[in-house]
Amino acid sequence: MKSVNLGIVGLGRGFMLTLPALRSHPLVRLVGAFDLRPEALAQFAEEFGGRGHKTLESLLTDPKVEAVYIATPHGAHAEQAIAALRAGRHVLVEKPMATTVSDCARMAQAAEKAGQLLMVGPSHGFDEPVRVAADLVASGRYGPVRQVTTFNFTDFMYRPRRPEELDDQKGGGVVYSQAAHQIDVVRRIIGQPVASVRAVTGNWDKARPSAGAYTALMTFKGGAAASLTYSGYAHYDSDELVGWISELGQKKDSSRYGEARKALTALSGEKEIRAKLSRTYGVPGQVPASQPPHHEHFGFLLVSCEHADLKVLPTGIEVFSDKIRETVEVAPPALPRASVIEEFAEALSDPHRAVHDGRWGLDTMACCAALARSSEVGAEIDPHLIIQEETEKLT
Amino acid sequence: MKSVNLGIVGLGRGFMLTLPALRSHPLVRLVGAFDLRPEALAQFAEEFGGRGHKTLESLLTDPKVEAVYIATPHGAHAEQAIAALRAGRHVLVEKPMATTVSDCARMAQAAEKAGQLLMVGPSHGFDEPVRVAADLVASGRYGPVRQVTTFNFTDFMYRPRRPEELDDQKGGGVVYSQAAHQIDVVRRIIGQPVASVRAVTGNWDKARPSAGAYTALMTFKGGAAASLTYSGYAHYDSDELVGWISELGQKKDSSRYGEARKALTALSGEKEIRAKLSRTYGVPGQVPASQPPHHEHFGFLLVSCEHADLKVLPTGIEVFSDKIRETVEVAPPALPRASVIEEFAEALSDPHRAVHDGRWGLDTMACCAALARSSEVGAEIDPHLIIQEETEKLT
Repeated sequence: MKSVNLGIVGLGRGFMLTLPALRSHPLVRLVGAFDLRPEALAQFAEEFGGRGHKTLESLLTDPKVEAVYIATPHGAHAEQAIAALRAGRHVLVEKPMATTVSDCARMAQAAEKAGQLLMVGPSHGFDEPVRVAADLVASGRYGPVRQVTTFNFTDFMYRPRRPEELDDQKGGGVVYSQAAHQIDVVRRIIGQPVASVRAVTGNWDKARPSAGAYTALMTFKGGAAASLTYSGYAHYDSDELVGWISELGQKKDSSRYGEARKALTALSGEKEIRAKLSRTYGVPGQVPASQPPHHEHFGFLLVSCEHADLKVLPTGIEVFSDKIRETVEVAPPALPRASVIEEFAEALSDPHRAVHDGRWGLDTMACCAALARSSEVGAEIDPHLIIQEETEKLT
Repeated sequence: MKSVNLGIVGLGRGFMLTLPALRSHPLVRLVGAFDLRPEALAQFAEEFGGRGHKTLESLLTDPKVEAVYIATPHGAHAEQAIAALRAGRHVLVEKPMATTVSDCARMAQAAEKAGQLLMVGPSHGFDEPVRVAADLVASGRYGPVRQVTTFNFTDFMYRPRRPEELDDQKGGGVVYSQAAHQIDVVRRIIGQPVASVRAVTGNWDKARPSAGAYTALMTFKGGAAASLTYSGYAHYDSDELVGWISELGQKKDSSRYGEARKALTALSGEKEIRAKLSRTYGVPGQVPASQPPHHEHFGFLLVSCEHADLKVLPTGIEVFSDKIRETVEVAPPALPRASVIEEFAEALSDPHRAVHDGRWGLDTMACCAALARSSEVGAEIDPHLIIQEETEKLT
C-alpha cells in the first residue's frame, strides 16, 4: 500500500487524539503543519522534522504535502477542505465534516471536480468492532438486519468547551459532534440508505445552552430501523454496560462520579477556554494519551438480525443466535485509530475502497440536520430532501 | 380499606401468575369462578370454598360476587367485561384490555354508564419501582422529565402459545401483549398525555408469523420523548442489565441459553397448545410460582430528568444527579402483584385513586394501535385520532 505524506491543518485537540496513530503508523509521514500557535509549529518541526506553516496557503503550496488532515474547529472545515482539494491535495477531515449540509455538499462536489479523495474521520464508524459487526451483518450469516438499538450517556456537555461548541447555530452541542458518530456507526452496520429520521433533542441546562441530548428513530430503505439515544449531561454513564471501558478504549474507574461537572464549576469563561487550549499540541507538559488497551466505542450497541442479536463491545462481539451464544473476539488494537489511516491509504490506491468518503460524510451530515429539524418542526424528515434543497441552492 | 369479594373469569395462565397475590392478600376473598374446565372449578371450590360456575351469566348473578377479575384470552375480554359491568360488577381485566381500540372504547363507556370501576391490570405499570420512580419524577426534585430510554429482549415468541396468540389480527404478537406493558410504564413515569407514536415492527420468523419485535419513538404533550424497543425472538436477554432478575422477579441462571426455542422445537401444533394449557390452574402437578425475592420489571429503564438520570431496577432506583450518585432502595415485595389489588380496592372507595382505569387502558391500547399502524403506513400517528375515529364509529 502507498504511504502518505501528510500535512496537518490545526494542531489542536483533534490532532492530539489521533497523534499516537499518526506518529507510529508506517503508512504516514508528517511532512508539514499549519497552526496559528508558533510553539505548536516549533514542537512539530522538532518532533517530526516537518515544516511549520503560518498560513494554510503556504502549507498547500508545499510540494511535499500530498494530503492534508484537517482537525480545526468545525466552522473552518469547509473552506479549508475546499481550498486543499482545489490545490490538488487529498483531504482527511475530522467529523463533523462541516457545520451545514450546504457546506458538506460543496466539499463533496469539490472533491469530485478535483478528482481528489475526501474522507471524513476519525469517527466511531471506523472502530474495529463496528467494522467486524458490519462484515458479519453483510455476510448474511444471521439473516437480514432488522433493528439496531444504541445509546450513549456521557459527560460531553461538561468537558471544557470553546463558546462556539455550545452554539447550535455553529455546529455546537451534541447533534453534529456526537450524533455524527452514532449515525456513522448505525449506517455502517445496517448498510442501507436512510429513509427518515424522527427525533426529539433536549436543551436542559441554561448554563450550557445547546442541544445536549436527543432520542431518534431512523428508518432505512431496506426496511431496517434504528433507535439512537444520547445524553451528554454527565448523569448516567453507559460505559458501565461495556465493561467500564471509556470511549477512547481506556480502563475507567467506576467509583468516580460527577468529576467533569465539578471540575468545570471551578472554571469560568476565559479559564474554560484556556483549559480547552491546554489540551492541544505543543503545550508544555501535555502528553498524548497512552496506548489504550481496548478499541474505542460509542456506547451500548445491539444489532438485531433475523437469526441473531449482536452485542458490539470494545473487546469483541457477543453473538446471541438461534441456537448458541458465542463471542467473536476482536484482537486488541495494535495502534489506536489505525483503521482511519489504513482506509485513507487504501482509498488513495483504489477510491472504491473508501467507505467514509465525501458522499458518505454528506449523508451523515444530512441525517444530523434531519435530526435537528425533526425536533424543531415535530415531524419525520427525509435527509435526502435536505440534500436536494441545499444542492439546488448551490447551482 | 374495603375488602373485595372477587369472582374469577378464566382460571388460566393469567390467573396462575396472579394467584399468589389473590390467595394471600387480606383485601381479597375469592368467592366464585367461571371456567370451561370442570377440574379447574373443582380445585377452585376445594381451595377457596368459592362456587364454580359453568357460564359467565351464572357467575354474574351470584350475589356474593362484587367484582370480577377477567383473565381469559384477549379476544374475550370486551364482551365479558361489558357483561359484568352491565350486571353491576366492578371489573379488573388483564392487559391487553381487548384486541381493538373500538372494543376498549366500548368497555370504558360501559363502565362510565354503569358507574362501575373498570381497571386494567396487572401490568408492569403497577410494579413498585415504577411507582416510586413516577413519584420521584412527579415530585419535581430532579427538574422536568425529558427522555425515557427503555428496551426489553425476551423469549416471548417461543413460549408455548395458542394459535391466536400468534395472529396479529387477534391481538397476538408483542404489539398488544408486550407493548402494553412498556407503554404503561413509560406513560406512568412521564405523566404527560401522548402526542405521537412512530414505530417499526418486525415479523422475523415465518414459523411464528406475527410481530415479535418493534422499536418506537413516542412524543408527549409536555415535550418529553421516549424510546421503546422490544424483541421477543429469544436472542439477547436484557435481564443481564437488571442483575439477572427475571421479569417476574425471580433469580435467573445466566449460564442457560436458548432453552425456550429448544423446548419448543420438541413440540408441535396440538402439543404446543397442550403445553400452554398445562400451565393453567387445576392441572395436576402444576404449582404456582414461588414467592419472588424481587419486584417484577420490564427490562432496562432509564429516565432522564433535567437534573438526574434514574435507572429503575427491580431492587431499587439508582439516581445519577448533578452532584451525587445514590440508590433509592425499594423494599422487596411482601406479596407479588399486591399493588394491583391495592389500587383496585382503593379505587372502590375512591374512584379518583385509580391510575389504571378504563380511560387509561383505552389510551394505552390506542398507543399500541398507533404503534402497529405507524409501522404499516410508515408515518407518525397520534393515538387520540385513533380513539376519535373508533368512537365516532360507535355512535
